[in-house]
Amino acid sequence: MTRTVVESKTKTAVLGFDEPFCVIGERINPTGRKKLAAELEAGDFSTVEKDALEQVACGATMLDINAGVVYNSNPNPNETEPPLMRKVIQMVQGLVDVPLCIDSSVPGALAAGLEVCEGRPLVNSVTGEIDRLEAILPLIKKYNVPVVAISNDDTGISEDPDVRFEVAKKIVQHAADYGIPAHDIVVDPLMMPVGAMATAGIQVFALVRRLRDELGVNTTCGASNVSFGLPHRHGFNAAFLPMAIAAGMTSAIMNPVRPVEMEAIRAANMLMNHDPHGAEWIKFGRVLDLVEAGTPFPEASKMIAEAGSGRGGRRRRRG
Amino acid sequence: MTRTVVESKTKTAVLGFDEPFCVIGERINPTGRKKLAAELEAGDFSTVEKDALEQVACGATMLDINAGVVYNSNPNPNETEPPLMRKVIQMVQGLVDVPLCIDSSVPGALAAGLEVCEGRPLVNSVTGEIDRLEAILPLIKKYNVPVVAISNDDTGISEDPDVRFEVAKKIVQHAADYGIPAHDIVVDPLMMPVGAMATAGIQVFALVRRLRDELGVNTTCGASNVSFGLPHRHGFNAAFLPMAIAAGMTSAIMNPVRPVEMEAIRAANMLMNHDPHGAEWIKFGRVLDLVEAGTPFPEASKMIAEAGSGRGGRRRRRG
Repeated sequence: MTRTVVESKTKTAVLGFDEPFCVIGERINPTGRKKLAAELEAGDFSTVEKDALEQVACGATMLDINAGVVYNSNPNPNETEPPLMRKVIQMVQGLVDVPLCIDSSVPGALAAGLEVCEGRPLVNSVTGEIDRLEAILPLIKKYNVPVVAISNDDTGISEDPDVRFEVAKKIVQHAADYGIPAHDIVVDPLMMPVGAMATAGIQVFALVRRLRDELGVNTTCGASNVSFGLPHRHGFNAAFLPMAIAAGMTSAIMNPVRPVEMEAIRAANMLMNHDPHGAEWIKFGRVLDLVEAGTPFPEASKMIAEAGSGRGGRRRRRG
Repeated sequence: MTRTVVESKTKTAVLGFDEPFCVIGERINPTGRKKLAAELEAGDFSTVEKDALEQVACGATMLDINAGVVYNSNPNPNETEPPLMRKVIQMVQGLVDVPLCIDSSVPGALAAGLEVCEGRPLVNSVTGEIDRLEAILPLIKKYNVPVVAISNDDTGISEDPDVRFEVAKKIVQHAADYGIPAHDIVVDPLMMPVGAMATAGIQVFALVRRLRDELGVNTTCGASNVSFGLPHRHGFNAAFLPMAIAAGMTSAIMNPVRPVEMEAIRAANMLMNHDPHGAEWIKFGRVLDLVEAGTPFPEASKMIAEAGSGRGGRRRRRG
């Protein structure tokens, strides 16, 4: 059975066909967040702190850490990303205890992150491009960590799902040449927006099923991409995620601070028989009760978690 | 390609693997609705009228008509159901133009409904029990209509999905003996509550896939059954429906007057490439805008439909 094990210093997350869906929090990423990029350039990490705490409170299994800034003072990511990646990882792992996903297109930033990251992080990502494979796979082998493999290569992103499958297969084979097992490859089949490509949904569902049945690999995707350009994206994403889970997808890089999507995932977990006695669904229902009564989702999540663990709320006061 | 054609006097609905999901409105059913049963006994059909109009406004493809009353004055359904079925069908088809689904466990009520129903209704239902097959299939053949086949038989409801598959297969074979083609059989694989049976979800997804791939039949289910006994049922149902659709389910008997479930189905239709250019999703988004601003769902649905068709709103006043 395919199990991709990701660890922090104290916690283990497992991606697998018999595991609850793994939610990789996407918020710590300055791409497209000008305000955050400016804050980081100024040495202000308050948004990073808030994003780390809120995402974990809302149920992120893992946090993606991307330090892809383009500073006004220095536009060269090879110089700016590695030290920032190091700093953000150290800060985040001092705040929360979930495993991390080190996310960069700059090999030096991945290496810097791997140096300081405790436990066994997931690396995001390698593609099927030869120079990327040769830059990233030795790092993966050296640190014995799992990696996200994006199914495009030197020929670009194919619209043909058979080509995308073959690219994924090629990456798995290349990794094997380095001694990296298939269960440490998490394939991202590339979710295109259905508004731009009407067959994108059914292609990815079929592709995920093949990746699972034929390659035996775990899968992930940037979930919100599916609804790009459409109105009411959260509701749309909340239908996509259960369908992807039913097809066999085992994780997604997404925003966990959205109750609609998280509700869909919790329900799908129970429907896949990955929530014994519905305990997680019932607990999440108590969070939803608070949200419906006006409590913000991160706060409601925290209140219910603390009530359940006996670390806060009434029980604490009684102790 | 399997196509189950259901018709009213003026409208056609098609259940099929390449068609949008078919929503069969469940509201016109006095079972468990004491107030409605009492109204019907008193000859008051105002709730039936309201339920017919609202369900169609909210997007029901078809309306289920059940007249299963137990009157205080007469507890014999063989006497009370047939005339009531006749009356309700005549009333509903005078009000709305969608195809109907004639729903009864009393063969005489099905026969009475078939006599007065215009077009080509769906009959709900036959089971694998020998006496039911022999009572219902001749009616199906006589009127040349499609039928819902529930996968239980004289041995009861099996928890084994292989047994449920075999029962469905047996019904399809029996129907063939009467000259009824497989495309006129809509199998209900029996959705059990996941709160009571943790594997109920994955079993039904696998069963629907087999029914589609091996028997080539359309499928349906009583969708809300999945969440029986759980908190936050609408959100749970809204995750179940896209998963069932991804597995190949082509219809459900459900309450269409719930925006959460209908939103999930509209999104799933687009994700299955059954909504060209997302036109239906975008239109539904305008309904959701109104709902979020406080307009009740049936009214919001009606406003957007009329604005789009030019039969109401501004365009009418201009004409």
